[in-house]
Amino acid sequence: MESMVPMETLVSLCKRRGFIYQSSEIYGGLASAWDYGPMGVELKNRVQNFWWREMTQLHENIVGLDASILMHPRVWEASGHVESFTDPLVDCKKCKQRFRADQIPKQNMETHSCPECGGELTDPRQFNLMFRTHVGPVESDAFLVYLRPETAQGIYVNFKNVVQTARMRVPFGIAQVGKAFRNEITTKNFIFRTCEFEQMEMQFFIHPSEDGKWFEQWKQERFEFYEKMGIRETRMRFHQHGPDELAHYAKIAFDIEYEFPFGWRELEGIHNRTDYDLRRHMEYSKKDLTYLDDLRGGERYIPYVIETSAGLTRTVLTVLADAYDEEEVEGEKRVVMRLHPELAPVTVGVFPLVKKDGLAELAQEVARDLREDFTTFYDQGGAIGRRYRRQDEIGTPFGVTIDYQSKDDRTVTLRYRDTMEQVRVPIVELPERIRQAVREYRRVD
Amino acid sequence: MESMVPMETLVSLCKRRGFIYQSSEIYGGLASAWDYGPMGVELKNRVQNFWWREMTQLHENIVGLDASILMHPRVWEASGHVESFTDPLVDCKKCKQRFRADQIPKQNMETHSCPECGGELTDPRQFNLMFRTHVGPVESDAFLVYLRPETAQGIYVNFKNVVQTARMRVPFGIAQVGKAFRNEITTKNFIFRTCEFEQMEMQFFIHPSEDGKWFEQWKQERFEFYEKMGIRETRMRFHQHGPDELAHYAKIAFDIEYEFPFGWRELEGIHNRTDYDLRRHMEYSKKDLTYLDDLRGGERYIPYVIETSAGLTRTVLTVLADAYDEEEVEGEKRVVMRLHPELAPVTVGVFPLVKKDGLAELAQEVARDLREDFTTFYDQGGAIGRRYRRQDEIGTPFGVTIDYQSKDDRTVTLRYRDTMEQVRVPIVELPERIRQAVREYRRVD
Repeated sequence: MESMVPMETLVSLCKRRGFIYQSSEIYGGLASAWDYGPMGVELKNRVQNFWWREMTQLHENIVGLDASILMHPRVWEASGHVESFTDPLVDCKKCKQRFRADQIPKQNMETHSCPECGGELTDPRQFNLMFRTHVGPVESDAFLVYLRPETAQGIYVNFKNVVQTARMRVPFGIAQVGKAFRNEITTKNFIFRTCEFEQMEMQFFIHPSEDGKWFEQWKQERFEFYEKMGIRETRMRFHQHGPDELAHYAKIAFDIEYEFPFGWRELEGIHNRTDYDLRRHMEYSKKDLTYLDDLRGGERYIPYVIETSAGLTRTVLTVLADAYDEEEVEGEKRVVMRLHPELAPVTVGVFPLVKKDGLAELAQEVARDLREDFTTFYDQGGAIGRRYRRQDEIGTPFGVTIDYQSKDDRTVTLRYRDTMEQVRVPIVELPERIRQAVREYRRVD
Repeated sequence: MESMVPMETLVSLCKRRGFIYQSSEIYGGLASAWDYGPMGVELKNRVQNFWWREMTQLHENIVGLDASILMHPRVWEASGHVESFTDPLVDCKKCKQRFRADQIPKQNMETHSCPECGGELTDPRQFNLMFRTHVGPVESDAFLVYLRPETAQGIYVNFKNVVQTARMRVPFGIAQVGKAFRNEITTKNFIFRTCEFEQMEMQFFIHPSEDGKWFEQWKQERFEFYEKMGIRETRMRFHQHGPDELAHYAKIAFDIEYEFPFGWRELEGIHNRTDYDLRRHMEYSKKDLTYLDDLRGGERYIPYVIETSAGLTRTVLTVLADAYDEEEVEGEKRVVMRLHPELAPVTVGVFPLVKKDGLAELAQEVARDLREDFTTFYDQGGAIGRRYRRQDEIGTPFGVTIDYQSKDDRTVTLRYRDTMEQVRVPIVELPERIRQAVREYRRVD
């Protein structure tokens, strides 16, 4: 078992190499908000595209959707979020600090005393985690709306639309990637938990009698998804929700957990939400959301839903933590991000061995051609070894070096990040060699 | 000049074929909010990817960024939005309706009389267009933040981070796609103007002496971008902002306008924002945002910015409106969306001529293989002509039909959407034939 990267090392690399910056940093930052820099946005986009392709393009029975963040407020009454999406908070009357009641040590709760200053605590009060805003120019007479705390409801309220217009028949799924917002008092662990985050959710609509079968299938399929992205199986496990953990809508729930540097935490949840959400929306909207099943002799029913709910930003953290590696090379430490080539922010680095004698010009020509097919970074500054290391640190899987021989025979060296092996390749063959290496990629530590 | 599609026809097609639904429709909808259905989200993603590839991958001097929607409120003081991002509104004291003062007929403003009921109007008052919310569980002592009204500021506050960590040198650009929110009183014309929308913005940082040159370059390049996406040049034009139209930060501004069914409207803005934003952020944050230019003998200056600001959701509307076409084929009306193949939500439709005799099985096998490379839709229901028409309506550029001959010689017909031409192709050659047709695509009406 390899050692885990300390969080401060990872956070520092993310800042230094342009993956993740603190939001509004020049103004002292905004608590738990983060911006994705040049490398971070490319990585995040690739994780999203990997999920999207896997869930929609490769599944003929799943289609996509993108609902708006602001929805009619009745949606959140129906979903139960207005009533139940709360944290119990207590205040210290002396030092005025606020705490989540379930995070205060038991003895302090029993003595009603502040864990910080010993002062008297208020009784717990329920605070809703939804952000509120108003549509319309004046707050007094404007329309109260919420920033959605989950993307799933956008799918449920469109269930009928999709059935009617996308020619889908149960069993089928609807997939969505998008922002969600939760006004949580405690946010920590870098991008693991943030007030503003991105979800990748899929709701799979099924006949109620088949919920066991489909739950098992999605549980396995979602676990395998992370293996496909190159995440180490040894750092993943399932955790079943006990009765006290189950959300108000769930009949059964499993988390896929990952062993982060700060411990085992939820990476994705697979939930049997039963017909709870569709039934509630029927009740609140007075619209018929039942499904007429031709394939079951015209049976009419409210479908059950198996949900797979992952965090995009959280998956980015997982991918980064899992990819981080250090090794000693020729007496020096090499930091290398062993990212799957389909996720790496830059696919190819192009380097002239030296700038002079026309090598820079030839290298720029090679980079220009590669850029049509791959995200390509051209770098002519500094010793070649340092340039390799810079690319290793951002996980660039391939390096192309143009040397004097290249001018004579139009060949270059192709360097593989993980093994540091270098092979001589004709320039014209580069795109196909790179594509092949991406297809055949297996992680080597 | 072809006739334009009436908006109601386009809106109806968008609903019927799963491009765009009204948000929260089962609850009566939320004003001017829209959800993107299975076809809409694929189209929107492809427009976004087209822009992203064009701006980042193909430009070695532009990198990406993804800043959070919630930022420190000082950002919006510095940017001028707290002070200046307002609409003048008037109320009718009699019928209580509210209007934008600049949209009321001049005679009514002079007589202070309501254009609806003739009642007395209040004096205009300025209302800020930013949505407000609070971070922290209790409104009274929580932190007031805004939903960003533009993505650009997320780029400016990260200017120094990008310079320091992404090894970029002026001139260089930062590109971003993301949601923005404007609490506007009048929203109309389908997805053209909505409170929640997506922007595709690029800020190009330059030496102040070169603003004329770069402005011209980006003006031309951005116009050509729409032509690359297949938008008709005859429906585009430039419009220069007069002194009364210029935003508070702009020295010069041009819009690229498109002739929508409801008239000529802004599609994208190209703005010379000078050093206004960086200078203001220096002033408000007390941080040094100057740039030390090695390539100019160590000159230190605040870069000027040329901004290219497009709406993603607005571009989706443009692409849809521009692609819509009707023609008569064999005595019947054919509706066809002439979408660029790289933008079409579905790339290939696969159809067995009939279900029986093993044709369905062979067609499913062909679809399964194509799905690895292309978004593929399998359809075995109804007459083959009707299945073609359904794909024409969503703009699917290629159709593959499996017939009895296919079982004997493993060939199929490949149908081209625009010409309806059909050619016989071996199954194994399909991926390359389709890729080639995408590369060589030219619009044919």
